[in-house]
Amino acid sequence: MPEVMRPRARDRGIPFDGTPGPWNAITDVPGVEVGQVTVRPATSIPADRRHWVRTGVTTIFPQGPRDLGPVFAGLATLNGNGELTGAAWVEESGELLGPIASTATDGVGLVRDGLVRWMREHGLPPGAWALPVVGETWDGYLHDVRGRHLNEEHVREALDSARPGPVAEGSVGGGTAAICYGFKGGMGSASRVLEVPGPYQVGVLVQANHGRREQLRIAGQPVGRALGPSPRPEAGSILVFVATDAPMLPHQLRRLARRAGLGLARSGSISGNASGDFFLAFSTARRERGGSPLERLEALPNDALDPLFEAVVQATDEAIVNCLVAAEPMVGFEDHRVEALPLEQLGFLGSDAAH
Amino acid sequence: MPEVMRPRARDRGIPFDGTPGPWNAITDVPGVEVGQVTVRPATSIPADRRHWVRTGVTTIFPQGPRDLGPVFAGLATLNGNGELTGAAWVEESGELLGPIASTATDGVGLVRDGLVRWMREHGLPPGAWALPVVGETWDGYLHDVRGRHLNEEHVREALDSARPGPVAEGSVGGGTAAICYGFKGGMGSASRVLEVPGPYQVGVLVQANHGRREQLRIAGQPVGRALGPSPRPEAGSILVFVATDAPMLPHQLRRLARRAGLGLARSGSISGNASGDFFLAFSTARRERGGSPLERLEALPNDALDPLFEAVVQATDEAIVNCLVAAEPMVGFEDHRVEALPLEQLGFLGSDAAH
Amino acid sequence: MPEVMRPRARDRGIPFDGTPGPWNAITDVPGVEVGQVTVRPATSIPADRRHWVRTGVTTIFPQGPRDLGPVFAGLATLNGNGELTGAAWVEESGELLGPIASTATDGVGLVRDGLVRWMREHGLPPGAWALPVVGETWDGYLHDVRGRHLNEEHVREALDSARPGPVAEGSVGGGTAAICYGFKGGMGSASRVLEVPGPYQVGVLVQANHGRREQLRIAGQPVGRALGPSPRPEAGSILVFVATDAPMLPHQLRRLARRAGLGLARSGSISGNASGDFFLAFSTARRERGGSPLERLEALPNDALDPLFEAVVQATDEAIVNCLVAAEPMVGFEDHRVEALPLEQLGFLGSDAAH
Amino acid sequence: MPEVMRPRARDRGIPFDGTPGPWNAITDVPGVEVGQVTVRPATSIPADRRHWVRTGVTTIFPQGPRDLGPVFAGLATLNGNGELTGAAWVEESGELLGPIASTATDGVGLVRDGLVRWMREHGLPPGAWALPVVGETWDGYLHDVRGRHLNEEHVREALDSARPGPVAEGSVGGGTAAICYGFKGGMGSASRVLEVPGPYQVGVLVQANHGRREQLRIAGQPVGRALGPSPRPEAGSILVFVATDAPMLPHQLRRLARRAGLGLARSGSISGNASGDFFLAFSTARRERGGSPLERLEALPNDALDPLFEAVVQATDEAIVNCLVAAEPMVGFEDHRVEALPLEQLGFLGSDAAH
Repeated sequence: MPEVMRPRARDRGIPFDGTPGPWNAITDVPGVEVGQVTVRPATSIPADRRHWVRTGVTTIFPQGPRDLGPVFAGLATLNGNGELTGAAWVEESGELLGPIASTATDGVGLVRDGLVRWMREHGLPPGAWALPVVGETWDGYLHDVRGRHLNEEHVREALDSARPGPVAEGSVGGGTAAICYGFKGGMGSASRVLEVPGPYQVGVLVQANHGRREQLRIAGQPVGRALGPSPRPEAGSILVFVATDAPMLPHQLRRLARRAGLGLARSGSISGNASGDFFLAFSTARRERGGSPLERLEALPNDALDPLFEAVVQATDEAIVNCLVAAEPMVGFEDHRVEALPLEQLGFLGSDAAH
Repeated sequence: MPEVMRPRARDRGIPFDGTPGPWNAITDVPGVEVGQVTVRPATSIPADRRHWVRTGVTTIFPQGPRDLGPVFAGLATLNGNGELTGAAWVEESGELLGPIASTATDGVGLVRDGLVRWMREHGLPPGAWALPVVGETWDGYLHDVRGRHLNEEHVREALDSARPGPVAEGSVGGGTAAICYGFKGGMGSASRVLEVPGPYQVGVLVQANHGRREQLRIAGQPVGRALGPSPRPEAGSILVFVATDAPMLPHQLRRLARRAGLGLARSGSISGNASGDFFLAFSTARRERGGSPLERLEALPNDALDPLFEAVVQATDEAIVNCLVAAEPMVGFEDHRVEALPLEQLGFLGSDAAH
Repeated sequence: MPEVMRPRARDRGIPFDGTPGPWNAITDVPGVEVGQVTVRPATSIPADRRHWVRTGVTTIFPQGPRDLGPVFAGLATLNGNGELTGAAWVEESGELLGPIASTATDGVGLVRDGLVRWMREHGLPPGAWALPVVGETWDGYLHDVRGRHLNEEHVREALDSARPGPVAEGSVGGGTAAICYGFKGGMGSASRVLEVPGPYQVGVLVQANHGRREQLRIAGQPVGRALGPSPRPEAGSILVFVATDAPMLPHQLRRLARRAGLGLARSGSISGNASGDFFLAFSTARRERGGSPLERLEALPNDALDPLFEAVVQATDEAIVNCLVAAEPMVGFEDHRVEALPLEQLGFLGSDAAH
Repeated sequence: MPEVMRPRARDRGIPFDGTPGPWNAITDVPGVEVGQVTVRPATSIPADRRHWVRTGVTTIFPQGPRDLGPVFAGLATLNGNGELTGAAWVEESGELLGPIASTATDGVGLVRDGLVRWMREHGLPPGAWALPVVGETWDGYLHDVRGRHLNEEHVREALDSARPGPVAEGSVGGGTAAICYGFKGGMGSASRVLEVPGPYQVGVLVQANHGRREQLRIAGQPVGRALGPSPRPEAGSILVFVATDAPMLPHQLRRLARRAGLGLARSGSISGNASGDFFLAFSTARRERGGSPLERLEALPNDALDPLFEAVVQATDEAIVNCLVAAEPMVGFEDHRVEALPLEQLGFLGSDAAH
């Protein structure tokens, strides 16, 4: 475990199936890099309102910042109460071009346009257009959404700061003000390593802002019932980004993305009406573009996909719990306060939880 | 509990959330009737092969056998490795006309054509066509699929035998030879009663033939891990039919149907590649067709739907377990044997399980 | 032009864009074979009702009868008032296994089950299931749908009679009783040859039973307006099957299939509520399955697809007109009569129409 | 014809089917208002580059600026090479909240965020989020996309300028720099009045930026063949917004939207790979929200929809031609020049074309 990372869910004795990669994060898929910026309040903001600024941006580069792709990709929407720009072209083309970003609802447009400009400066041909993928979750309980605190510099910083390796979890980046199952939520990640078929990596990054407290299930236990009810109605949404280096075709990646909903269900969600539950899966497997117009590809047959499906279910579930374990209590907009998951009340502390 | 019904999952001490209706079955929705025929081997079959005949038909009438509808309906497909005839017109029109049926894979066509003929005799106007909804699950491990044991008389009998009240579970009707999480599966049902919004009923009927043993989760407990692995690969599929008397529009019923997948996930499924996981929801709420071409309707607003979503998640999960609890071990085709869920090993027997 | 084929639309002076293949039929795609059976009335039927029997079956083998595939495939539904069995698995898997069939509405189940049995006898492994693709159009105006004239032998005959080469058009096979734009319709075919990218073939087979007379447009001319209105309401549907040897991935074939709707629009259709407009595209390009679980593929990039899209638009439009030109007047069920398109009234007879 | 409007397509002798409303525009649907802003270059821009600024914003209010809705709505995507923000929630909820906007590709985010802010100031409850619908077409050939000429004030102006009555066509608003079938394109509108069912209005507004010159068909005539080929590759897209006061449910509006693609096909499009072809339909029919949670609605039955489908096909086709007729030649970015459709070469000038 890297020094920068605090004990995570499985370090705290919560049992999960499957074998994670070295970082237990989406960055276990070779080439994937993640950047995150948490906005600091401008000095012009009165001191007693600086804690109202709770927003940020997270970025994912499928193949590192120097290769904009495209990579094959597929999408699934479980409940569409949200925005995912670029979705139509991913569905149509089966491809994802450039980095992905996630932020808070009101900033989607700014981040989307910022990605376009960044791509123009980093290799998008003149005369070409870009349709970048930007997702969001609503942060209006803890963040001052009317304050216009996010600007294009933050977007650039989130893009330029992308790195391989450990991924910060909890109240950072696009998930800074997120609330998950009535507790402080945010970013979470997890991964699985497969041997058959394989060896392949499957990594998941969630921006978790969904659910009501009484729904929460951890490792199958309906722990939320004892902790609930939520102090306020759901103003939900969860984004799940799935990366793999397994060679899969676009229609298969759509199937893979759909399994994120099953992992979400394990953690207790009913995908409420107010929730924007969007799942995007991409494959970093290389495709050859030779001299001919034809591309040469490899792909797993459909009947080899079950281990990948299972990996997504497991890693999505774990990433959500990782987010809850990482997030600390937060006081924000209008002094609204959201508690952290009281992990010590849940009775999971096992023998390997002595960190 | 009616005398005809044996102890069911919650009678055996397995905890479930929510309040079921009087039958804890899809028939708790007023007007809904279910018919089931389990095929008996013809006397022409040699005695030592009569147990190879393991098939049947289940029917659902949304508004009783004398009102063919249409009712508003919506569909969701989680993994499309199966057949659901009539699906395209339900999706297009938002309506379901006539009874639904479910059977085994190779008999879908026969049952579908049989429903058309039955509808011609029961009120379908001459010159009109019908596109009935018929689903299936694969039964080739326990049933002699090449034997052509199912005939149109069975279809009529399944239609004519439809009744309100308790619903037979386990190895009956379309689920006669079903295998669920590596144990004997089949039909299962459950329901929920809602007060807000409401009072409304939500009923679920499953034909459960999916999953591997090691995936099984009951009430969140990963009990399958200790019972697995499955003795053979998944040859899956689950059908989930959802009924409600809540007034909902077609696009809302599609959303309702989609939540069956979350209940399925709670029981452990990853919706494997070999599985045909189809969910159909319909509303029996009456619509007025007056003298004008316009229909007058009522509908719940979207932001009132969460309790209905939750009811579907809960009832789907419980119906699957009900199916497992009801099914007894079976020996079938080529003397293949499938065990029943060893419930007594699972440690759920609570104080109210003394039946 | 083969001797067996009568003058077709372009032989009659109707102008079409693009270059057809040698047969101007779906069979111009190497490997594609078509079988058609038009049911003859049983001798037990009274002589004065023998002309009430107007039905049949058409089959398409993507790679000839000895290779059941799978091939990559994609689907599009423009208006789902019809049945296309097997659709869910094509959409999920991106693959089509075995032959396709089309027939009349009430026989879909029989043909579907018949295909399953035929596939069991021709290489489907024991223990495996099949989900064959069978489409339909409604034929109740000219055919005695209650008479049960179609049987499984007809299905086998339609499968066993599949051949490369010219494709019979008009009142044959699945389109025997079809009515198209108020005139006698049925089967029609056309093809296009592409050089860039390519050389590739695109072939189309339609079963055309859609539209009202006043909607008909031929080569852009609103000829139907002068010929209409239709003597009876639309009881529509059109099936469009698209074959190509261009290497395309499933999501690209879905895009290709969608373009059949644009060809349909050119011929005047508004895709009425009563119409079941289903489009299926498949690619016969070979995929290598080596010793590893991975398949090796080739595929065109998305930005090379426009010529293929255009070919589908053109060939669909032409296949519909070919069907109208080929069909002769028919008297059928209850002595209903449907006229042929009065081509000579349309003023298209050009210099090369002297056949 | 209002004085402000120049002769339009049907004034120039081009024949179209159906009966238009008084303005032959989307604003013939009562309550619908349209605002358009065409950006003027800032005075800080060097005089020789002021003509490089060719962009703008168009807005549509379904029920006037004081009623943000929601209204029932449905979507269809024919080729998703573009962006339509808010699409996921329209599809999920069946509803559209607030005004719609369209602009050029790189400004989508800015316009989207601008709409959110405007809605916050005009009745969106605090603590609620908005997911506005904003579409785009690419304008990089005539407009200096890197110049950041569009700002939030333009968005407000486009919203505040919304009016009923005639709709400006051609090079205005979101369509300022659009190129359609290789000629100068932009905004176009048309409408149809229906008596049965009805009386209802159907109005269409297009932002037409699609197609290649040789594809263009006007009133069925392949006029583009003589005018083509296009001087440059397609960099396409067309947005079609459909309004009606007919009471229709969300799933029916999705069907209505899909018919825009058939009107598009009539004008010659093959919906090329580079095109973002998005269609949105909404109904302004009032829904009653009484004291109970239930809404009371009226809706047309499915079998009454064909005249509405036909109206959309016709009005979409005519709106595209109206756009071409209205647009004048333009010189823009880097002195790129796009010609207007040479209508006088097309031989349509009839007796009523003497304006």
